[in-house]
Amino acid sequence: MIVPLNKLKNFNDPVYGFISISCSLVYDIIAHPYFQRLRRISQLGLSNYVYPGAQHTRFQHMIGAMSLMQQAIETLEQKGISITTPEKEAVLAAILLHDIGHGPFSHTLENILIKNLEHEKISLALMHLMNQDLDGRLDLCIEIFTNRYRKSFLHQLVSSQLDMDRLDYLRRDSFYSGVQEGVVGQDRIIKMLNVHEDELVVDEKGIYSIEKFLIARRLMYWQVYLHKTVVAAESILIKAVERAYELSAKGEQLFATPAFSYFLTQQPTAANFFLTPTGSTNAPAGINAYTQLDDNDVMASVKVWCHHPDKILSDLCLMIRDRLLPKIEFSNVPFEESKIKALQAKVALSKNIPLASTSYYVYTDSIRNRAYNLDSLNIKILYKNGELIDITRASDQYNIEALAKPVTKYFLCYPKNVIFTH
Amino acid sequence: MIVPLNKLKNFNDPVYGFISISCSLVYDIIAHPYFQRLRRISQLGLSNYVYPGAQHTRFQHMIGAMSLMQQAIETLEQKGISITTPEKEAVLAAILLHDIGHGPFSHTLENILIKNLEHEKISLALMHLMNQDLDGRLDLCIEIFTNRYRKSFLHQLVSSQLDMDRLDYLRRDSFYSGVQEGVVGQDRIIKMLNVHEDELVVDEKGIYSIEKFLIARRLMYWQVYLHKTVVAAESILIKAVERAYELSAKGEQLFATPAFSYFLTQQPTAANFFLTPTGSTNAPAGINAYTQLDDNDVMASVKVWCHHPDKILSDLCLMIRDRLLPKIEFSNVPFEESKIKALQAKVALSKNIPLASTSYYVYTDSIRNRAYNLDSLNIKILYKNGELIDITRASDQYNIEALAKPVTKYFLCYPKNVIFTH
Amino acid sequence: MIVPLNKLKNFNDPVYGFISISCSLVYDIIAHPYFQRLRRISQLGLSNYVYPGAQHTRFQHMIGAMSLMQQAIETLEQKGISITTPEKEAVLAAILLHDIGHGPFSHTLENILIKNLEHEKISLALMHLMNQDLDGRLDLCIEIFTNRYRKSFLHQLVSSQLDMDRLDYLRRDSFYSGVQEGVVGQDRIIKMLNVHEDELVVDEKGIYSIEKFLIARRLMYWQVYLHKTVVAAESILIKAVERAYELSAKGEQLFATPAFSYFLTQQPTAANFFLTPTGSTNAPAGINAYTQLDDNDVMASVKVWCHHPDKILSDLCLMIRDRLLPKIEFSNVPFEESKIKALQAKVALSKNIPLASTSYYVYTDSIRNRAYNLDSLNIKILYKNGELIDITRASDQYNIEALAKPVTKYFLCYPKNVIFTH
Amino acid sequence: MIVPLNKLKNFNDPVYGFISISCSLVYDIIAHPYFQRLRRISQLGLSNYVYPGAQHTRFQHMIGAMSLMQQAIETLEQKGISITTPEKEAVLAAILLHDIGHGPFSHTLENILIKNLEHEKISLALMHLMNQDLDGRLDLCIEIFTNRYRKSFLHQLVSSQLDMDRLDYLRRDSFYSGVQEGVVGQDRIIKMLNVHEDELVVDEKGIYSIEKFLIARRLMYWQVYLHKTVVAAESILIKAVERAYELSAKGEQLFATPAFSYFLTQQPTAANFFLTPTGSTNAPAGINAYTQLDDNDVMASVKVWCHHPDKILSDLCLMIRDRLLPKIEFSNVPFEESKIKALQAKVALSKNIPLASTSYYVYTDSIRNRAYNLDSLNIKILYKNGELIDITRASDQYNIEALAKPVTKYFLCYPKNVIFTH
Repeated sequence: MIVPLNKLKNFNDPVYGFISISCSLVYDIIAHPYFQRLRRISQLGLSNYVYPGAQHTRFQHMIGAMSLMQQAIETLEQKGISITTPEKEAVLAAILLHDIGHGPFSHTLENILIKNLEHEKISLALMHLMNQDLDGRLDLCIEIFTNRYRKSFLHQLVSSQLDMDRLDYLRRDSFYSGVQEGVVGQDRIIKMLNVHEDELVVDEKGIYSIEKFLIARRLMYWQVYLHKTVVAAESILIKAVERAYELSAKGEQLFATPAFSYFLTQQPTAANFFLTPTGSTNAPAGINAYTQLDDNDVMASVKVWCHHPDKILSDLCLMIRDRLLPKIEFSNVPFEESKIKALQAKVALSKNIPLASTSYYVYTDSIRNRAYNLDSLNIKILYKNGELIDITRASDQYNIEALAKPVTKYFLCYPKNVIFTH
Repeated sequence: MIVPLNKLKNFNDPVYGFISISCSLVYDIIAHPYFQRLRRISQLGLSNYVYPGAQHTRFQHMIGAMSLMQQAIETLEQKGISITTPEKEAVLAAILLHDIGHGPFSHTLENILIKNLEHEKISLALMHLMNQDLDGRLDLCIEIFTNRYRKSFLHQLVSSQLDMDRLDYLRRDSFYSGVQEGVVGQDRIIKMLNVHEDELVVDEKGIYSIEKFLIARRLMYWQVYLHKTVVAAESILIKAVERAYELSAKGEQLFATPAFSYFLTQQPTAANFFLTPTGSTNAPAGINAYTQLDDNDVMASVKVWCHHPDKILSDLCLMIRDRLLPKIEFSNVPFEESKIKALQAKVALSKNIPLASTSYYVYTDSIRNRAYNLDSLNIKILYKNGELIDITRASDQYNIEALAKPVTKYFLCYPKNVIFTH
Repeated sequence: MIVPLNKLKNFNDPVYGFISISCSLVYDIIAHPYFQRLRRISQLGLSNYVYPGAQHTRFQHMIGAMSLMQQAIETLEQKGISITTPEKEAVLAAILLHDIGHGPFSHTLENILIKNLEHEKISLALMHLMNQDLDGRLDLCIEIFTNRYRKSFLHQLVSSQLDMDRLDYLRRDSFYSGVQEGVVGQDRIIKMLNVHEDELVVDEKGIYSIEKFLIARRLMYWQVYLHKTVVAAESILIKAVERAYELSAKGEQLFATPAFSYFLTQQPTAANFFLTPTGSTNAPAGINAYTQLDDNDVMASVKVWCHHPDKILSDLCLMIRDRLLPKIEFSNVPFEESKIKALQAKVALSKNIPLASTSYYVYTDSIRNRAYNLDSLNIKILYKNGELIDITRASDQYNIEALAKPVTKYFLCYPKNVIFTH
Repeated sequence: MIVPLNKLKNFNDPVYGFISISCSLVYDIIAHPYFQRLRRISQLGLSNYVYPGAQHTRFQHMIGAMSLMQQAIETLEQKGISITTPEKEAVLAAILLHDIGHGPFSHTLENILIKNLEHEKISLALMHLMNQDLDGRLDLCIEIFTNRYRKSFLHQLVSSQLDMDRLDYLRRDSFYSGVQEGVVGQDRIIKMLNVHEDELVVDEKGIYSIEKFLIARRLMYWQVYLHKTVVAAESILIKAVERAYELSAKGEQLFATPAFSYFLTQQPTAANFFLTPTGSTNAPAGINAYTQLDDNDVMASVKVWCHHPDKILSDLCLMIRDRLLPKIEFSNVPFEESKIKALQAKVALSKNIPLASTSYYVYTDSIRNRAYNLDSLNIKILYKNGELIDITRASDQYNIEALAKPVTKYFLCYPKNVIFTH
């Protein structure tokens, strides 16, 4: 086991002030190289192309969520909910590790580097590997994470519609982006948490704060996470990686760090990622490469590709490096095929590339968000008289159901200099 | 000339709120690839190893300093100081560009990547190159930057003991590190600025704020910039690059991005960096490589070197990647040679390496700071009666001269597991 | 005319930082005793009984709203809207003075001290009186305030569903109460303001911020302004003043400051308040007394009345002084007459007072709020294509109409120690 | 005993967020009328005449200091210092009550209303009275407050050069005044507290924060507490009360609330204040009047006196009511007698008053501050090697002794319209 040399006991967090590490398991998780890797993964992908302050990392978010978990535990204990010391340590571990599986630029390249593989599955695989390093001290953490533990509220604190993950990211992303719309009274919400028959619920007095939380979340989606220019920037990064994968599949040698090369040449899928046989190491080769990969590998390679002879690849990479973003349109209905075709034809002509390749420049897709998910585990309000009512019905002043309606937006990207007549 | 596709008019800054771009020259500078590169250079080197929030970039700092410059111009104009439109644009350009010459991790690798070459000289060279791209629109900016312009206060706003650079970085570094000690009333200080015979001065009412500013600066040095653990982390990064240079000089092939490879193989010096002959490009090859280099190149390479057969290199790189920092001691006097030698002997034994190589593990150096420089251009207080007095004599309550005394600290780093008997 | 001796040029506002006074009309208004009186009137009545930080005054709010008006003017001018210097001064004066008619504890005693007279009418009367002192320099201000000026947007900046008054009070009340739910990105909203055919409109990009603003306003109503305990505290203050009026009408002598005595003995109404004939002064006697009245008069008197022989009056006053608040219930439907009668009967018995007097202890009333008023001047969104759409229809993601539905709540107060069986 | 009807469990503090009440003793103290009175006493006298935001009350400060005490207890316990539950409750009570003896406008009228009687003595008297109401539950609190308890560090947390009182007021006064110079990292300082042989000490790592704290305190004195205009405003209030005492002593009837009348007519002194015999109540008549007195009594009376026939009294009161402050000069040496005499002669002439009365308009006095008191209990730094060193010698970089030098300033006030030739 690695023994860290400079023991950090407190973190100085610009958002919450001092955060203390409360137990050695937490300490050992943070010291683990898998966790230290999160220092090199930006929390919000390329959102900093619009909000330059949004440079914070997954590392900070995980520490912040852990700090909120400490507060939540304290609140529940004050309300008489019994939580044992092993449970406390496990739920702190679970919140620290629930996103350990994120790759470069967090959500941006999810499902791209490894087709159809979501980060939650990688998180679980990494937890199992870390559990070996930590001699089984993550057993209960994994039980909670996978929702197989009796006290469901512990899982719900880690992953639900009102978990410590969401409370932290809204507050933190709001802080760093400078978008005040997302400021949430997370300390007030935490004070309102309660447990009823092993389920996480919210005291009656917290109803306005919950409403505000759901609304803030929706606003942050459209104003930050799915901001038009952020969507444009991230779509270009996706296109660049897709082009590199395409060239690599054709046998072309591309500059990349060894870890990134593994993905370009092997192009693993959800089906085979965890199966990759391995000789000398504990972890499969894929996992091994993945845990060495971070923003630096991708950005360093993208910058080199700016000089690649493939015009499409170098174009896309220059657009990322120098922030030369495409035009993007949003619409509530899908874009007409004819409009897309017309744009692609123009690009084929102006760039002198085959029509088939124009989809790197002209493309459409959709994004979707809903603030509150009626199908998923609902937020329940606990009334003083003992009644338990879903937030959508508990609020007599406001139509929370409106927030449950998913919103889909279609977007269309194309080079700005392509003149288009409506 | 590059034409940016998505015109940003406002920045949402977490520190100051909205920042508006006020003229097209500022817009064009920000859009330039040399300036966009600053998005990929962290403001505070490895300070985030101690203060995880300190992830902000040179880009943000430059935009922030420009915003303070806008306020300073407004204040001076309200006090009847005449500043022409070209002067305004030039001084905004100068503050944006004064640090454009910073390399990866800002100050950390300064004088290391290119021996004895300070970033200010590179800044000036880059300004001249950008001036070509911008058809001479930076002429006046360069005059101001090099202090050859008649109205000295414009230069002093860019570079002096009370410039917009310092005002922004204290506030910003304090904000992101979460160290409240550095919070400075920058808006109050700016309101107190004035001009007397073309020199920047401070109105009498601002005297306490200036004192506070000098004190805050000193505190930030010792608590953030020269924090023990930050010094330890950055010294390891320096050692790693030095080891890579040494191996490369011996002809060893090291993985690196092309831009970083240029430095490893050419090892340019202050003497030859700008001379490098060039064929087809505007910029010399060295400058060309330099402007493509950022934190990503260094960190991506360091991570690969963790697996390098050279034990010393891989050791140092692992220490950076996984935050396994050495022990560091501070002292007001130089460390005794005998103590150092004894530690090196132990390391030679325990690591089984030649004594000559132990200086990668056991080393001493000094750091030095003074909050106020008596030799440099002093801060002058302008009294209502027209008198002009140096801040060190103006404050009747406090001994500012104490702040002018440089403080030197010696540090000694060595592996933590080397047992040492005092 | 009064000449102030210490000229304040800047205010240090905890919410916005430095606020500068930009013209001598603004300076002269602030220096006027009618305006200085606002220093002694709390912005939020008795909200500090729940939120101890909410001690801010009308004075601060007016200065803050003026500061936002300065920003709004600047933004509109940058967008090419022409606003002359006299118009600027007038609209700044109008926002400063629009609430000058508030009495002790702001809204709490409105319509109580003077039956059915709203503060807006008193504001206008005071403006006319100040206009005499200021030699007619408020003529245009009054035109704008009364919406008789051609450029309607100036009036709308002062008084509409998106005026500088609301923007400031939401932000400020949120700041001082510590209720983060009300934090509004007021600088962003102001940047989005525009003018279309002399009407104030909002640029398309501002739509989410407007939604957030409406939602924040609703949340602040229920969480601060109409917080159960605040409603209880303020209702007791109202009851105490009503009891004092009742006793005074019966000829009883009550301790009070002369200004407050005027109201107790004259009990002016909307009908006769402005008519009161006057001999030697400019202002009618009622106005004269009113402008000398503030929180101190009421609170000093209430404290003395704690020792008054009338048990009801002393009871109510003690409840205010020592924060011994009654029980309060909220309901969406009116409380049943029988429940009220039963409570009153119990109180008559336990306090040994006639049934008719129990309405000082047991009473019901209703409060009502809607975040957005469909009947009033609507907020219009200006699309890039020139279309103008009401916010309720402009937002495709959210049902703003829900916010337009007025919410009425009924409340019932009664002494806590009255045992009541449901 | 009074039973509060609406039990508050949490305070929403704009400075620290949620503050919880942790025990019933704290609850009962806060509910006591003596403590509720602090809601009506402004923390910073007339500082709001310069900093309009500084409207916060003693009540808020006491709650804030209690919240810091909770943190300090928690930190010390984590370091292994044993603190029993009764000790915890007692030290929380002591910090809540240590300033309970403050009168109207806090320090402003101290030693004026009751000659030469400091608020600490009144605090102790009130604690003893409250202890009767609370059935002796304040015994240990009083022992700690009077420093007769064995564990001295408990007293030092309440009253020393680094107590929770100072930590809170610097932070809070800085927050509300908007003067960022006073922002202190109070959470960091608290984390650095330790106990060595029953004395409160500071861990080595906290040395910079302590320096900053001392400096911030000095800056807050000169920028807020002893700001020229604040000194001028408060001196006028003192003069007005002195004039009222003088008139009252001559037998003149002045309007005042009964509680204030007691002081005007009895003019108690330190010698007789506590002796005042009493018949039917627990508290002496003086104490009885004192605990009914707050800002409202004084300000309500001052406003009435604006119309008093005594020209001097009405002049002074108008100056307060309408913020018509005198001119004030500061000097490091006493003002020359001849200058003062000359000014008084002019005032006698222009106001047509006897020379003896001019001291109400022209007067000089001195104010004095030192940031660190070498004579008082010193701040000790605890080194890792167990050494204990005074902060003045512990800091090798800075001359803390300079902060220990008391600074005396002389001021001279006179009406602005008195022309004076230097």
